[in-house]
This record gives sequence, C-alpha cells and structure tokens, in this order.
Amino acid sequence: MTGTTQDDYTDRYARRVRGMTTSEIRALFAVASRPEVVSLAGGSPYIAALPLDAVGEMLGELAAQQGATSLQYGIGQGTIELRERICEVMTHSGIVNASPDDVVVTVGGQQALDLLARVFLDPGDVVLAEGPTYVGALGVFQAAQAQVRHVAMDAEGLIPAALEEAIARTDGRAKFLYTIPTFQNPAGVTLSEERRELILDICERAGLLVVEDDPYGMLSFEGDAPLPLRARRREGVFYCSTFSKTFAPGLRVGWILAPHAVREKLVMMSEANVLCPSAFAQGAVTRYLTTMPWRQQIKVYQEIYRERRDALLGALEDLMPVGTTWTRPSGGLFVWATLPDGLDSKAMMPRAIAARVAYVPGTGFYADGTGRSNMRLNFSFSAPDRLREGVRRLSGVMEQELAMRAVFGEAGLHPGPQRRRGPAAADVPGPDLA
Amino acid sequence: MTGTTQDDYTDRYARRVRGMTTSEIRALFAVASRPEVVSLAGGSPYIAALPLDAVGEMLGELAAQQGATSLQYGIGQGTIELRERICEVMTHSGIVNASPDDVVVTVGGQQALDLLARVFLDPGDVVLAEGPTYVGALGVFQAAQAQVRHVAMDAEGLIPAALEEAIARTDGRAKFLYTIPTFQNPAGVTLSEERRELILDICERAGLLVVEDDPYGMLSFEGDAPLPLRARRREGVFYCSTFSKTFAPGLRVGWILAPHAVREKLVMMSEANVLCPSAFAQGAVTRYLTTMPWRQQIKVYQEIYRERRDALLGALEDLMPVGTTWTRPSGGLFVWATLPDGLDSKAMMPRAIAARVAYVPGTGFYADGTGRSNMRLNFSFSAPDRLREGVRRLSGVMEQELAMRAVFGEAGLHPGPQRRRGPAAADVPGPDLA
Repeated sequence: MTGTTQDDYTDRYARRVRGMTTSEIRALFAVASRPEVVSLAGGSPYIAALPLDAVGEMLGELAAQQGATSLQYGIGQGTIELRERICEVMTHSGIVNASPDDVVVTVGGQQALDLLARVFLDPGDVVLAEGPTYVGALGVFQAAQAQVRHVAMDAEGLIPAALEEAIARTDGRAKFLYTIPTFQNPAGVTLSEERRELILDICERAGLLVVEDDPYGMLSFEGDAPLPLRARRREGVFYCSTFSKTFAPGLRVGWILAPHAVREKLVMMSEANVLCPSAFAQGAVTRYLTTMPWRQQIKVYQEIYRERRDALLGALEDLMPVGTTWTRPSGGLFVWATLPDGLDSKAMMPRAIAARVAYVPGTGFYADGTGRSNMRLNFSFSAPDRLREGVRRLSGVMEQELAMRAVFGEAGLHPGPQRRRGPAAADVPGPDLA
Repeated sequence: MTGTTQDDYTDRYARRVRGMTTSEIRALFAVASRPEVVSLAGGSPYIAALPLDAVGEMLGELAAQQGATSLQYGIGQGTIELRERICEVMTHSGIVNASPDDVVVTVGGQQALDLLARVFLDPGDVVLAEGPTYVGALGVFQAAQAQVRHVAMDAEGLIPAALEEAIARTDGRAKFLYTIPTFQNPAGVTLSEERRELILDICERAGLLVVEDDPYGMLSFEGDAPLPLRARRREGVFYCSTFSKTFAPGLRVGWILAPHAVREKLVMMSEANVLCPSAFAQGAVTRYLTTMPWRQQIKVYQEIYRERRDALLGALEDLMPVGTTWTRPSGGLFVWATLPDGLDSKAMMPRAIAARVAYVPGTGFYADGTGRSNMRLNFSFSAPDRLREGVRRLSGVMEQELAMRAVFGEAGLHPGPQRRRGPAAADVPGPDLA
C-alpha cells in the first residue's frame, strides 16, 4: 500500500477481472481516431444526418419545461411514457403484442446484455453465440466468467445443424443462445425467414433461452427485414434493442423486452447497477418519438447507409487483391471481409495505421482466438469518397504484405511466436470505435 | 417454456439473483409518491432550485452546436474535458493532487460502487460498512454475493475500536471498508477529524482498501466539512462522488478517483457494462461547470437544506413522542431517528402511509435484518411547512401505536411471526425515493 506499482492491487482483484488486459492493438486505435486516418473500424452512426437544431430546441424545452422531473431521479424500470413509445417502435418491427410492463429501459443496448448476463449466468456457464459476434457481448460474457461457444454462420445466418451440434456438445450447460439475427455485427448477414423458425424450434426443444439483439433491424436497404424472433415466440425470447442506431448513441437509451417473470429480476439488477436510467435521456427519446418524424429519420439513415454500402462494396470489387472475399449486407453498418491466404489482419494492423487506414481485426469478434484472416469494415460513418480512399489504402497495405510474403514466406509477416490468445475483447477498440 | 408462470425461469437464474425478491413494502412506496402523501422517504435533491431556463438553454446549445460529438459514442473512461473539470471540483473538497487520467466517469454514484464491487469482490468476500449504510451499496454487495459486516457509529461517525474488532473477526477476508464519512446516509453523522486519521491508519495496517463515498460533502451547513479521506491518503483509497446532489441526478453522472493501476480495470469493467457513459450527459455537466455559477448553486442548495433541516429538527423536538431520539446532521439530506421502545418502523409503515406520511424503515439500511427501531427522514425535498406536517402525521401514528401497545402489548403491533429477514435491500423504495 506504500508504492504505486500495479502489484499493490493485483492479488486483490476478483477472479472475473484477472483475464482482462488491454492489448497493444488498443493503443493503435487511439491513433486511428486522428482525422488523417480513414477509419473503417468504428460502429458509429452518422449523427450529422440528424436535424441538430431541432433536437437542440427539443432538449432545451425538456429541461426548461420539465426539469423538475427530467433532471430528477426516476424509477428503475424506466418511465411509463418511454416504455409505451418503445412498444410502438417495436410494432414498427413486427412485435405487436408487447406490454410496456414487460419493457426495461437500459443504459444503451450494452447494459441490456449485461443485465441478462448477470441475471442468468454463473461462472462456468456456457453461452452459444454466432461466430463472429458482437465484441461488446464478448466483454459481457467474459465479465460474467461464462464460456462462449461459437456457432457457424453462412450467407443465410446461423446454420441450424451447427446449432444442434453445439447444443449437443454442451451437455445442457448452455444457458442461452445470444444472436443478432438481422444485419449481424460484424458479419453483415441476416438469418433467413426459413431458418428463423428452425432456430426457434431447436432452442425450444433444447430448453435454451434466446437473447435476440436487434440494434440494426430498422436499417434495412432492401425492403423490410424478416420478422424478429420475438415476433414469432413470446416465451423464452429476450428481445434487446437500442436507440443508438435509429436516433443517437450519446443518450445511451436501450431496452429489453422480457418475459414477465424475469422483468422484475432485471429491474432489481439494474437498480443495483445504475439506480435508474437517466430521466433526461428518457425524456429526450420520448419527446423525439412523440414530436419529431422519427420514421422519416430512419429512412434518411437508410438512404445514406445504402449509398455508403454500395460505395464500399464497389471499392472492394475494384481494388481488393485477388483472393479477398466479403459479405454483401442488405442493411446495418458492417461488411465482413476474408483475406487472401496467409494474410493476418491483426499482425497487419500497425502497417495499416501507418498507411492511414483502420479496421477491426477479426480476432476481436471471437472468444477463441480465431479470426486472423478476417476484418470488419464499417460503412455508416464515412462518406463514399472516404470509404473508397480507405479501401485504396487498405488494398495497398495488403498488396505489400502479399509481396513480402512472396519474398520471405509467412515468417516474414509474423515476427514473434503465434500464441493462442485469451478472450478476444482485449483486441478491440474502445466504444468510440467499436 | 410453454406457460407464463414464474417457474419457467426460476431454475435458470444465476445464484446472485436467487435471494433478490421484491418486498411488500415496495408496493407501499408507489403509494408514497402520491401528492397527498408527505414523503420523508426520498433522497431527492430540490431540483426546482436550479435555474431551469438557463440549464435548458445550455442543453439546447450542447445539442445544436456540439451534437456531432455530444450525441455520439464516447470513450469508456469519460471525456478528458469532464475529467479535468472533475479534478477542479475535487480541489474544492480539498483533494488537490488528482490527475484526470485517474478519474473514471460513471453512470451516477451507483455505477461507481458497482464497478468497484465487480473489480474486487468474489462471492463470499467480506465488505465492512457502517451500520446503517446506503441502501444502494447493500444492493451492489448483494449482487456481488459478498457478505456485509456492519461497523458501529456514534455521533462522531465510525468507531475506530469497532472497526478494529470487525477486521479481527474477518480473518483477512475483508476486501474493503465501504464508508460515507461525511453527512452519512442514512445516519446523518460525520466522521470527526481525529478519527479520520485513526481509521486510515487502521485500514492501512490491516491492508484493507477504503472505498470512500462522498456524494454529500459539499452540502455543508456549518463551515467546511472535514477533508475527505482521499485528501489524506493517495494509495489504497477509492474516492467516489456524483453530480446528483450538487447539480442534477437525472443526468446520471458520477465518478471514481482510483489509484492509477486500478483505473484501467474499472474502465474495462465499465465498457462491458455500459460501453461508455453518455456523451450528452457529460457534455451537459462540463458546460454547467464551465459556463454556470456552480459554486453559487451549491450555496443555494446549502441555504435551502439548512432551513429544511432546522424545520425538521424543530418539528421533531416539538412533536415526537417521548423516548424518540434523532441525529443532528451538519450537512447532507438525512436525519436518522430511533423510536421509543417497542415500536417497529417496518410494521408501522402501512399505517403511516394510511396517515399520508412516508419514511424508510431502518431495516433497509442493514444487511442483517436489524434497524426495526429506526427510520430515515429526508429533509431536502419538501418545504419546511410540509416537513412539519409530515412529522405531525408521523407522531400521530406513533402515539397511536404506543397507545395500542399499552392496551394489547407488543403482539398487538406485530401480527404474524417475526422472521429474521434476508438481505435488506428488498425493503427499500425504488430509486425515485431512495
């Protein structure tokens, strides 16, 4: 207790944090946020598309006219006004039977996942999740000391036979399936209509709960997205979403629609965690949904992101080295690329940053250290010409790597031993880039 | 999975939630928020004392002028601008050597405690805490599956000899001392100057970390509060505070000042929990501290609360039944009352609510079921005449209970068996009243 070295605390940490370390990659992402770097790494919506003056006026009124409640404590579950609006929003996605009483307002979609983990997961419990999956979910499951088993996807999303196999291998220790069925992060694929019923049937037969994470479902570029899983089954499905992608992430407002019996546990856990969600942020979203054209704003986002997706896909087609493949998302924010044989997205990162382009290496999206041949590319935040410039820089780095590999062999690309990595969450950028 | 009964999920819950149940008392608090009830139960600041028009204008500008960042994701640790302002605020409390790099912005003071618990506590670990202590902290420790051992206080706060005894009894299993040294919630007492050094010495000798919770330190009615523990020791002390009592709780902005080595773990845990604190709420607090007279506003709160404390103490003096005693806080929000022999604050609650007055029974502030002869009375939220009316109603209920007791004996007051209770957190109101 007298010095300032890390050793003073190391032996006092709870077991859940002992595996949590920051990675060398993380420091690179600090550099990636510089303006000269084209970042394909983030997951940020294009907030400049919001009518900021009108939003400002609305927020000013919220404080001036309703400050006595909007700046005060609120109840742990969230305001009834917002929960009613959330049920309306879910109707827009095809969930028509939700009661405001079964909605729990959360601090963004992240807290929704964390609350579910804390209510259901003991150390050693198994969670099934798509491989690759959302980095923030991996962080939640790591903090819960749970084991993640990945289930393979293809262009139609989660593969039913792979899910059945994974369930069989876990001997009933799996608590739930965590899935992002629509415009998946990071893979950019969508679970097909037919498979939705199959996946639900498999989970129901196995007694496996389903945590459906749906932040992107409204950001469809080609007609409506398939109905959410929760619209097809009421029991056993926990539906999570957020206003981060349809309105603004800076307010941190998300929600869980939970089976009634569990809702109470989630509220108590949220109260232990944050006492109550921000009354001001809830009031802001409620006003936004009540007084502003939110459906129209989603159309605006859809148009912008569709154009950017097309720009990214076009640039990849034109510029990527032979042997590179990628997904073709019909909504959402991300493309998932697979590199030519022998390239390592993690090892290549420092050179990419030096070439003023950033991405998230695929290893960040797996709990088991795989993903070195993959990268996630974001198309929501940057304008089409920036996206093309980013891909141009990235392909230049890849061509150089391939040339080096041709001369020196694989060893030239990977100085140092190839250790099997621990939990992948350490490999990802902070929330400003994730 | 086919029905809608609670049994469908009960056997799936994590161990940490199995003891979490809502209490019958909680339903009463829903009634307590009706306007005809004088609530002495809450912990809410008097937000109407804020210049709401000016705050509204400021928030409107924040969205209109800085929306591209304030409505966007931010970094997990919190913005550097706010962390610098927080260091200035702490200087005001006498903590002059803090670096913004060691500050972690949190979702109110509650998340600060939860993050510390998740970083340090394994199931079965022991936490020492004042008895009584903050209900929200008990909720955190329960969720962490930790054991709370209470340490007695007197009018000068935590009793050093009692702390030494408690440490000796825990066989080194205690991870930290959780303490609210200044204007304690709920007891309304303040750790004296002399004892601050003694307590720190005891903890240092025992290798016990100190979690110092200081939400109320600036709300002093009689000169400056004693220096925080963190101003006296740099290592081994985690300082937590919040803007909920000095600005507005509806924004949910608090912080931890942590020894450098631990700060990184706290940030990673916060990212797993909420990704990042609200950029908008942080921008709001930053603007408030930069452009508005925040020191003057604290003086306004001090004046209002001093007058209300005096009104509450005067009413207690004038109206309480013989045998009732209470603390005389020199700051903060709360008075802690001890009832005449034989009265039970928990059993009396329904009758108090029927008489249109609410308080929090003392049992809510202990992890071990004690506190039935105590109640917490809040004086920050209601005007002096309302406080007096509340005490008048409360004393009427107590006189009736005493009269019934004189006629029927103790059994007449406590229908049903007196079971030893589980964790006390279930006995408290929701966050709107806590």
